[in-house]
Amino acid sequence: MEEVRVEEITLLIEQMLQDKNFKGLKDQLAQLYPMDIAEVFDDLSAEDCVILFRLLQKDQAAEVFSYLSPQSQKDIVGAIHVSLLNYIFNELYFDDKIDFLEDMPANFVKKLIAAAPPEERGLINQFLNYPENSAGSLMTIEFADLNKHMTVKEALARIKRTAVDKETIYTCYVLDDTRRLEGIVSLRRLVLAEEDQIISEIMTEDVVLCGTNDDQEEVADLFKKYDLMAIPVVDSEQRLVGIITIDDIVDVIEQENTEDFLKMAAMAPSDDAYLDTGVFTLAKRRIAWLLVLMISATFTGGIISHYEELLSSVVVLTAFIPMLMDTGGNSGSQSSTLIIRGIALGEISLQDWPKVLGKEFRVSLITGVILAAANFLRMMLIGKANLAVMLTVSVTLICTVVLSKLIGGILPIAAKALKMDPAIMAGPLITTLVDAIVLFIYFGVANVLIF
Amino acid sequence: MEEVRVEEITLLIEQMLQDKNFKGLKDQLAQLYPMDIAEVFDDLSAEDCVILFRLLQKDQAAEVFSYLSPQSQKDIVGAIHVSLLNYIFNELYFDDKIDFLEDMPANFVKKLIAAAPPEERGLINQFLNYPENSAGSLMTIEFADLNKHMTVKEALARIKRTAVDKETIYTCYVLDDTRRLEGIVSLRRLVLAEEDQIISEIMTEDVVLCGTNDDQEEVADLFKKYDLMAIPVVDSEQRLVGIITIDDIVDVIEQENTEDFLKMAAMAPSDDAYLDTGVFTLAKRRIAWLLVLMISATFTGGIISHYEELLSSVVVLTAFIPMLMDTGGNSGSQSSTLIIRGIALGEISLQDWPKVLGKEFRVSLITGVILAAANFLRMMLIGKANLAVMLTVSVTLICTVVLSKLIGGILPIAAKALKMDPAIMAGPLITTLVDAIVLFIYFGVANVLIF
Repeated sequence: MEEVRVEEITLLIEQMLQDKNFKGLKDQLAQLYPMDIAEVFDDLSAEDCVILFRLLQKDQAAEVFSYLSPQSQKDIVGAIHVSLLNYIFNELYFDDKIDFLEDMPANFVKKLIAAAPPEERGLINQFLNYPENSAGSLMTIEFADLNKHMTVKEALARIKRTAVDKETIYTCYVLDDTRRLEGIVSLRRLVLAEEDQIISEIMTEDVVLCGTNDDQEEVADLFKKYDLMAIPVVDSEQRLVGIITIDDIVDVIEQENTEDFLKMAAMAPSDDAYLDTGVFTLAKRRIAWLLVLMISATFTGGIISHYEELLSSVVVLTAFIPMLMDTGGNSGSQSSTLIIRGIALGEISLQDWPKVLGKEFRVSLITGVILAAANFLRMMLIGKANLAVMLTVSVTLICTVVLSKLIGGILPIAAKALKMDPAIMAGPLITTLVDAIVLFIYFGVANVLIF
Repeated sequence: MEEVRVEEITLLIEQMLQDKNFKGLKDQLAQLYPMDIAEVFDDLSAEDCVILFRLLQKDQAAEVFSYLSPQSQKDIVGAIHVSLLNYIFNELYFDDKIDFLEDMPANFVKKLIAAAPPEERGLINQFLNYPENSAGSLMTIEFADLNKHMTVKEALARIKRTAVDKETIYTCYVLDDTRRLEGIVSLRRLVLAEEDQIISEIMTEDVVLCGTNDDQEEVADLFKKYDLMAIPVVDSEQRLVGIITIDDIVDVIEQENTEDFLKMAAMAPSDDAYLDTGVFTLAKRRIAWLLVLMISATFTGGIISHYEELLSSVVVLTAFIPMLMDTGGNSGSQSSTLIIRGIALGEISLQDWPKVLGKEFRVSLITGVILAAANFLRMMLIGKANLAVMLTVSVTLICTVVLSKLIGGILPIAAKALKMDPAIMAGPLITTLVDAIVLFIYFGVANVLIF
C-alpha cells in the first residue's frame, strides 16, 4: 500500500544480481509490478537484462516484456529460447504485438508471423501496413462486441465468457451482421439496466469515431474534447476494425509534445529516448537546421560589412549589437512559442490573426518601452556613450521588440495557413530573421540620429 | 455517426442568432454534444453567449457549463437568474465545482457556498484550501465505496443504487469502518466474478495511490507508468478522501507541457488561454526574463569593447560575429531541449550526466566539423577573406558548437541537482551564456592565428 520507490528496487536488484542471489531475486520479482520491473531493465547491461528476464515467471515475463523499451526488447529477443518468445508474443495484446514487430528487423518479423496462428497472420500483415502515426497503427482488435437484439442478461453473459481476452470491456460495441457499428453501450449502463432490457433500447447511436487513416494527433484531440475512454476505428465501409484505448492516447499526447519541443529547437522530430539513440543519428537530426540557419546568419554578417564605414567611425555602436540581437530573438521566441502552443491546443485558429497582431503590438510596446528605459538608465549610469548613441540604442530596442513580437506572432499562423507545421516557426528561425531586421533598423536609426 | 464539424455548427448557430431564429436554434442545440456547444461559445460575443445559454435545456445547460472557458463562465454567471445558477452549481461534479469556484471572485464564491447544502459547505471550504496543482485540488469525492465483507451480488446492488452520482464506477474502493483504504476492485472483476464470492477474496490490496499534497505532475507520472484509469487520494492518516480520474490527468499533462514550453521560451508559466489573457498580464509574464537576459547580454558587448582595437585593425572579423553567436545559440538550444525533455519524461536522471556529456561531445564534434567545413567552402567561394581569417572562423565554429552543446547538455541536469526547474536552462539563457564564450574564443583564436 506504499508508494513504490523504483530507485530502491533498482539498487536492490542490482545488488542481488551482483551477489548471484537468483533464488532471492526470483521471489523479489514475483512481488513487483510489471511496470516497475520494466523500469529496472533500463539501467541494466544487456547481459543482466537477459539474466533478470529469465528469472521472471512465464506470464509475468509476457507482461513485463510489453513495457520494455525497444532496445531492451531487442536484447532479450536475441537471447531467449524461441518457444518462450512465441509464448510471450502470443500473450501480448494485439496493439502491443504490432508495436513490437514495428521495431524489430524484417527477417525476424517474418519468422514470428510465420509462427503466429494462421487466422492472425493476415491481420498482422494488414496492421503492419497502416501508415505510421495513423489510428490504424494504434488500435487493438480485442474489443467486446454485442448484438442489438440481445438482452442485458445475454450481453453480460457474453462479456463474462469472452472478457479475458479483451483490452477493455467498459465500452461494448454493437455490430450488425456485416460488422458495421450500430452503437455503443458502456458497462456502466449495462450494470445499471434491468436484466431483460434489450441492447438496442439502451445503446447510444450517436458515436464519436475515427477512420483507420486518421492522424493520431486528431484522434488524441477527440479524446481530449469528448473525455473518451476508448474510440472505435472504422474502415472506409464503416465496419468496426478496432478500438483505441486512452492509455495509448496518453502516450500519443506525450509523443506529439516531444516532437513539438524538438521542432521548436530546430531538430528533426523523433520519439526515441535520448540515451538509446546513437551519436550519428543524433547528429543527423541536428545538422540540417544548423546548416540552414548558419547560412542564413551569414546574410546578417553581410549587413554589418555593408555598414563597415559607419561602424569604424562610431566603434562604440558595435558593442550593442549582441544585446540588440539577443533581445530581438528572445522577444520573438516568446511570442512564437505562445502562438505555436495556442495553435497546437486548438485555442488559436487562422481567423484569429488580427487579434494576435493587435495583442502582440500592445504587449510589445509595453515591454519595449520598459526595456529601453532600463537600458537608457544603465547607459547613463555607466556614462560611456553620448546622448545620440543612447537614443539610437533606445529607439532601436523599442522597434526591435515590436517587430520581433509581430513576426513571432504572425509567422506560426502563416505557416498554418500554408499547411506547414507552425512549430518550425520557433525561436531559432525567428532569431535568425530578426537579427537581420535589427541591424537594418540599428544602422538606419544611427544614420539619422548620429550623422 | 459522422464526425462532428465544429466550424459548420458555429457558422450555423451564428446565422441563427443573427436571424433571431431562436425556436430553430433550440431544436438544433438539443441534438448536439455538450462539448461541441461549449466550443461554439468561445467564438461568440458575451451577449450572444448569454442568449445561447438561455436557450439550452436545464440539464444540458449544467453540462455545457462545466466545459466552458472560465471567461465564458464569468459572462454567463453575471447574466442568468440566481435560481438557474444554483441549479447548475448543484448539478456539477464536485471537482468541476471546485474548478469553477477557484476562478470566480471571492464575494461571489461566498454567496454560492452559502446556498450549497450544509453538509457540502465544509467540504468545499476544505477543497478550496488544497494547494494549487496538488492532488487534493484535482480530486473528486464521487467514488464508489464497498466493504470487504460484502458478496459480489451485494456489491453490484450497492453500485446500482448509488452509481448515478459517481464520476466512475469502473474502480470501486474497499474501505474499513474508519474509511481507511483496504483495497480496490474493478467493475470488470466484479462482473466476471461469481455472485457469492466475497469482496475480500477478489480485491487487489496492493494499490498505487497518492496523498492530497502530492504535486499533480507526480500524479500524472503514476498514471502514465501504471496505465491507471483512476487513482485514490489518501490523507495523512491513510483515509480515502477522493479519487482522480484519467480525463483530468490528460488536462494536467497538457498543462504541464504548456508550462514547460513557456519556461523554455523565457516566460512566467501559466495555463490561461492566450486570447483570454489581458495585455498587461501577458507583458508582466514576459518582461522579467527579457530584462535579466538584456542585462546579461550587455556583458557580451563589454567583451567586444575590450577587443575594439583588434576589431578595428581586422574589420572583417566583425561580420562573422552574428553567424558564430547564432550557431552557438542554436547548437546549445538543441542539446538543452533534448535533455530538458528527457528529464521531464523520466528518461534521463541525475546519474546519467557522464553519459550525456560523452554523447554531446561526440555529437558536437561531428556537427561542428561539418558546419566548419561548409562555412570554409562558402568563404573560399566568395573569396573575400584571407586564409588566417578563414581558419580563425572555422576553429571558433568547432569550439563554439562543442562548448555550447556541452553547456546545453549539462546545465539542465545541474539545475535538477540543485532542485531548480530544468526548463529554465533552455534556449534564451544558454544563448546569452554561449554568446560571451563564443566571443572569448573568437578573439583568442584571432590573436593567435592572425597576429
